[in-house]
Amino acid sequence: MTDDVLDRLQSTIIARRGDDPASSYTASLFARGRGRIAQKLGEEAVETVIAACSPDPKAIVPEAADVLYHLMVLLADAGLSLADVRAELERREGTSGHDEKRSR
Amino acid sequence: MTDDVLDRLQSTIIARRGDDPASSYTASLFARGRGRIAQKLGEEAVETVIAACSPDPKAIVPEAADVLYHLMVLLADAGLSLADVRAELERREGTSGHDEKRSR
Amino acid sequence: MTDDVLDRLQSTIIARRGDDPASSYTASLFARGRGRIAQKLGEEAVETVIAACSPDPKAIVPEAADVLYHLMVLLADAGLSLADVRAELERREGTSGHDEKRSR
Amino acid sequence: MTDDVLDRLQSTIIARRGDDPASSYTASLFARGRGRIAQKLGEEAVETVIAACSPDPKAIVPEAADVLYHLMVLLADAGLSLADVRAELERREGTSGHDEKRSR
Repeated sequence: MTDDVLDRLQSTIIARRGDDPASSYTASLFARGRGRIAQKLGEEAVETVIAACSPDPKAIVPEAADVLYHLMVLLADAGLSLADVRAELERREGTSGHDEKRSR
Repeated sequence: MTDDVLDRLQSTIIARRGDDPASSYTASLFARGRGRIAQKLGEEAVETVIAACSPDPKAIVPEAADVLYHLMVLLADAGLSLADVRAELERREGTSGHDEKRSR
Repeated sequence: MTDDVLDRLQSTIIARRGDDPASSYTASLFARGRGRIAQKLGEEAVETVIAACSPDPKAIVPEAADVLYHLMVLLADAGLSLADVRAELERREGTSGHDEKRSR
Repeated sequence: MTDDVLDRLQSTIIARRGDDPASSYTASLFARGRGRIAQKLGEEAVETVIAACSPDPKAIVPEAADVLYHLMVLLADAGLSLADVRAELERREGTSGHDEKRSR
């Protein structure tokens, strides 16, 4: 068992794939397919934007958690993982954001 | 120096705060304020949704990296950190997603 | 009664304000406030983006209708109306989009 | 020439299709394709959400105009038009929003 809750969450997500959608929210997302998973991610991002406008910044935390969770489900559905995103962020280390944006 | 690129990225983000916006993209985000940071997060989430529709799932990876980066800038701007989000995810461990959704 | 369904919809939206949220979805939106109305607009836009990725373009139509409806509820909640948006679009007539973008 | 700026805007959008992307922003959107048009629509919706959080509600107006414009470009790109959305809204007239949501 890894120390990082993000890795544990990812393992749980992958383990839920194929479970009964009635008993697992994660399984219900996989059952509804890529488009619906992406839609949920987009909706959670909108909720994070709304929370960011609220006078209580702590409201951002549960929404950020929802974004991370749905992002990991989307990655898993596409045969990808947080390791791919970490590799991308490592690739960018030492590159300025302005240069990174220009390079694309 | 931590082993996790996410923690290193967060340290870099916090260190850039107050730098010259012309030389640091991160500093330019902080300078534009909470609303604009949230807007960029929302836009990156939309780009992730579009990438999720593409026939090449690998297109999701750089967009997911952008979502994580902007989410961490938003957290930092609000005096929060990835530790708060990890704590929220740990709090949820062992709770089914269906129950978690119902509890809110 | 105006000929344009958009104007009729707007009149209906304004008339529903203050109705019982249990019997009127529009009243339930107004009761939940500006942030929640904006959130619903964002979510409908995400659904439109997903529909735009689908092989059947007709899927865009109901989502576009949802975007317009929630946009009109948001305008009404802010004391604004479609007339304000039409005036803005009229103001832009004859200005090229490239110039319009540069002017802001 | 129709009286409604929305119809005039739609005619202008269709007329710009195939123009030089360097001189027409609308033509540049068509040239970049369905995914990019949908992305821009999503981004403008996020900007509307941010404007809805601002203390000055008038900030919503230009963003709502941007949403409508990009929605019409998306419809045109998909071989659809505002007439299709108006027909959908007419079809819904007399149906309560709660029933409309349940029917889908």
